Formats: sequence, C-alpha cells, structure tokens
Amino acid sequence: MGAQLPAGAASWGPDDVILYHLGLGAGAAPTDPNELAYTYERDLKVLPSFAVIPVFGALAGLGGLDGFDVNFAMLLHGEQDIEIHAPIPVAGEVSTTSRITDVFDKGKGALVVLEATSTTPDGEELFVNRFSLFIRGEGDFGGESGPAPGNPAPDRAPDVEVERPTLAQQALLYRLSGDKNPLHADPEFAELGGFDRPILHGLCSFGIACKAVVDASLGGDVEQVARYQARFAGVVFPGETLVVRQWRENGRIVLDVQTKERGTPVISNAAITLRSI
Amino acid sequence: MGAQLPAGAASWGPDDVILYHLGLGAGAAPTDPNELAYTYERDLKVLPSFAVIPVFGALAGLGGLDGFDVNFAMLLHGEQDIEIHAPIPVAGEVSTTSRITDVFDKGKGALVVLEATSTTPDGEELFVNRFSLFIRGEGDFGGESGPAPGNPAPDRAPDVEVERPTLAQQALLYRLSGDKNPLHADPEFAELGGFDRPILHGLCSFGIACKAVVDASLGGDVEQVARYQARFAGVVFPGETLVVRQWRENGRIVLDVQTKERGTPVISNAAITLRSI
Repeated sequence: MGAQLPAGAASWGPDDVILYHLGLGAGAAPTDPNELAYTYERDLKVLPSFAVIPVFGALAGLGGLDGFDVNFAMLLHGEQDIEIHAPIPVAGEVSTTSRITDVFDKGKGALVVLEATSTTPDGEELFVNRFSLFIRGEGDFGGESGPAPGNPAPDRAPDVEVERPTLAQQALLYRLSGDKNPLHADPEFAELGGFDRPILHGLCSFGIACKAVVDASLGGDVEQVARYQARFAGVVFPGETLVVRQWRENGRIVLDVQTKERGTPVISNAAITLRSI
Repeated sequence: MGAQLPAGAASWGPDDVILYHLGLGAGAAPTDPNELAYTYERDLKVLPSFAVIPVFGALAGLGGLDGFDVNFAMLLHGEQDIEIHAPIPVAGEVSTTSRITDVFDKGKGALVVLEATSTTPDGEELFVNRFSLFIRGEGDFGGESGPAPGNPAPDRAPDVEVERPTLAQQALLYRLSGDKNPLHADPEFAELGGFDRPILHGLCSFGIACKAVVDASLGGDVEQVARYQARFAGVVFPGETLVVRQWRENGRIVLDVQTKERGTPVISNAAITLRSI
C-alpha cells in the first residue's frame, strides 16, 4: 500500500493516435467524416480512452516493485477507471507517477489498485488511470473486501444499442499501440492460458465501447467524456462482434458490452460521466 | 539526367515491418503460422516489397531537384522495380543515394526513372528501387521513347490464381507506413484528382501482389525473391478484392492483378525473378 512505481515519461503524435483508433476498428466507413476524424490527421480528434496508452509502459515497473512478489501469469486486468481532466491533444507528452492505492481481499485473490497520474510538461494534470489488477491465489489474507462494483445496468431496455464488428486481425493491430502480451497473438501462449486461440486485449474492447458511446450517444464529441469506468467481465475472440448497450442516466451514460455470437459478457458495471459545461 | 537527390537515411524495426504487413491485409487468418510470421515478432519475416518503405522519404528530395520543374499534381507512379540483394532484416538501417537514370519521351508525358540504391552501415548494398514517374504534359520534347513494357502475361490460363480482399480502411492503415498523400484518405482531395473517393496506394497493391505470389507460388519463402517489376495499370478503391494471376516461367513468376468487382487492370507487365540458389 502506498508503494510508488518509478516515474515514466511518454510522448505521442498524430500517427500514434490514428494507429490506436484503427486498432479499435475506426475507419471501416472511410469516407464518413466522423470516422475520418479518428483516422486522418486533418481535424484529428482523440478518443478519451487513448489515456491508457501513454501510461502502459509505466506499468512495466510493477515487476520491480518492492513487496509485489506475484506470479504474473496469475494476474488479470479486473477494472479500468480513467479521469480526463482536459481534452487529450493529438500530440503531447506526459510524465506519469504511479502508486498502489488499495489492496483488497477478494477471497480467491487480491485486488490491487494502481493509480497513475499523468502530467504535461507545463504541470497540468491531464488524466488519471486506475488499473485494478486481480491476482489469483493471493486472497484470504484477512483484509477488507472493498466496495461492490458500481454502475449496474438499469432494469429497462437500453436507450441505444449498437453493434461493433472486430477484425480477425484486430488484436495484431491493437498490440502495435504498446501491449505486446503474447496472449493476444501467440496461439501456443493462449493455449497455456487456457484459451482456444489468442484473445482480444481487454483495453481494446474498452476503447471500442468508448468509441461506440461517443459516436452513438454523444454525437462524436470526444470532449464530453470526463470519466470512464469499466469492469472486464469476459473475453472476446478477434472477429467477434461487440454489442454495446447504452442508458442515459443523469449526466452519465451507463453501458455494458456482450459478444453477439456467444451472448457472453465482455464489459459490465461501466459508465461514462459527462463533463459539466 | 544523372541528377542526384540528397542522400537519405532510414531505419526500421519489427513494429514497422508488422505495420507494413498489416497495411497489406496480412493477419486476416490470425492463427495461420504463415500469417503470424508476417504479423508477430517471434519468427518475423520481411516481405521483399518492404524495400520501398525506407526509401520513400528520400523521394521528398525530388521537389528540390535542380531542373525538375514539374507540377506534382501531374505526376503518376508508372512503374516500380525493386532488386533485393540480400534478405531484408527485421530491424535495419540504410543510407539511400538516388539519381535520375532516364528521361523518356512518351508523347503525352515524360517518363522519369529514379534509381535509389540503399546500403547498410556495413557498406552492403541491400536493395535498389527504380521508380518510374510519368509526368503528364511534359512529353513531345523529341527524346527517345524508351523500351516497351516487358513481362507480358502468357497466352494461357494462369498456373495459380488467388483473390485478396482489401479492408475498407486499408489505405488509412497503409499510409501509416509513410505515404501520407491525401489522395488516399481525403474525399475532397480525391475528388479534385478526378476520383469518386480516395484510392488505394499503388504500392499497397504492389505489396499485396508480392505477398500473394510469395504465399501461393513460393510456399511463403520471402527469400526467393531477387527482383520484382510491376507496372501500375489502374486504381483500386479500398474494400475491393484483388485477383492475382500467376504464371511460372523459367525462374520467374509472371503476374498481373485485376479488381474482382470491376474487372479492371491494377498491375500489368509484372514479374518476380527468383533467386538462383
């Protein structure tokens, strides 16, 4: 608790932003002005979920963290929470400081919350990422179990429901944005992890869902997103179609994601908080 | 004639190679070992047509070339010829020297041949690119008309014929490998160029055809390609399917490419010369 990771710096430009958006399936309607705004440098916009990208490299510091002696094969990405304090520029630079803010006892495992705050060279806090990491086999240590997941889906039909196909090569493309875990490319490695074939990155589904909400509920306006919380509930195989359900709720869009083909949960307990203007 | 462009240096790594291959549609069968060898850094191979990528930036020097006073909107990429002297490494560095080797009078325009020779830091000549640029409106100056196009398709059924679909976002992805010409992304710009919508890069079709020959006629062995010559015969709209016909001819694979949907020519007078082993 409270342990800090070494500070990490990262910078990005328009090509990184475009590559990230293509990794989420953007541009499949290449002459649609809204899709071009994600994939062409003229009038380029940045999806708020891009906030995870410049921070990803800093997570490598977890391996050297004093007292964090865990088997990384037992680590699952449980939840992601991002707060966006200002619109993300198409080119930028941040320095990120990270620390462990919570360690919860979930019985079958420990839930470790890593908070990463990213600041521009001008000292402006641009965004905060909270990664909740579930470490199987490290529970039952007599700690607090932590809060129950929030943002339940309302008990009514969604206000908006859209389908988002993924490409067969979606994970191969998404991983060029930085997460090179072989689980998402290597069939043998995926098999060792208990999967028939490589799975899509959880943060790829996270980005696809963010884009689906921005485009279908917010008129494509990326700047309306102040916060995005999501819980990873199940895997996606590249090529599957995601069904993104959306409910308008008092300044927030509550959402969940399922696979169309298998009807299995992908993201649950998720909400996008709108910026008050 | 004989004018030299400023020398240009370029380097690349596995991510650049993977991005290039994804830009050609590789990885659509993501668990196929041959497709993974194009898209995953373990056992990565490099398609010979990648030779155009580290050289592309050097072409920018054309604009400042003394005596090369042309309207770039009138310039078309007519032909491409690459010679591969050694297998292209997954990470490398080359210095490229370029000069105008021929200027032919084609009546309606001039055909300018730019030869670019790329050398490793060890002094090894890795590959040579010959770009044939057709400049509309600059012909009829009383010069030689140059050789007729070679490599005619044989007058018999192809030995191999394969179809290669392109993604709707193929050009948006391919352009991240360096050719940012807005003709391949911007609908307004494409319209000014006389096209209904943005067209695929000629060198993207060139790479797709190279991969189709390597995979369908050469068992996936990229090292068999010693030379690849092609003539650009027509445009492809992203999302169209390319039909690549291949004929085995005395140590060469002669090929041509058409669109499946419109039956129009894309690449003609093309051949891959096999390395003698």
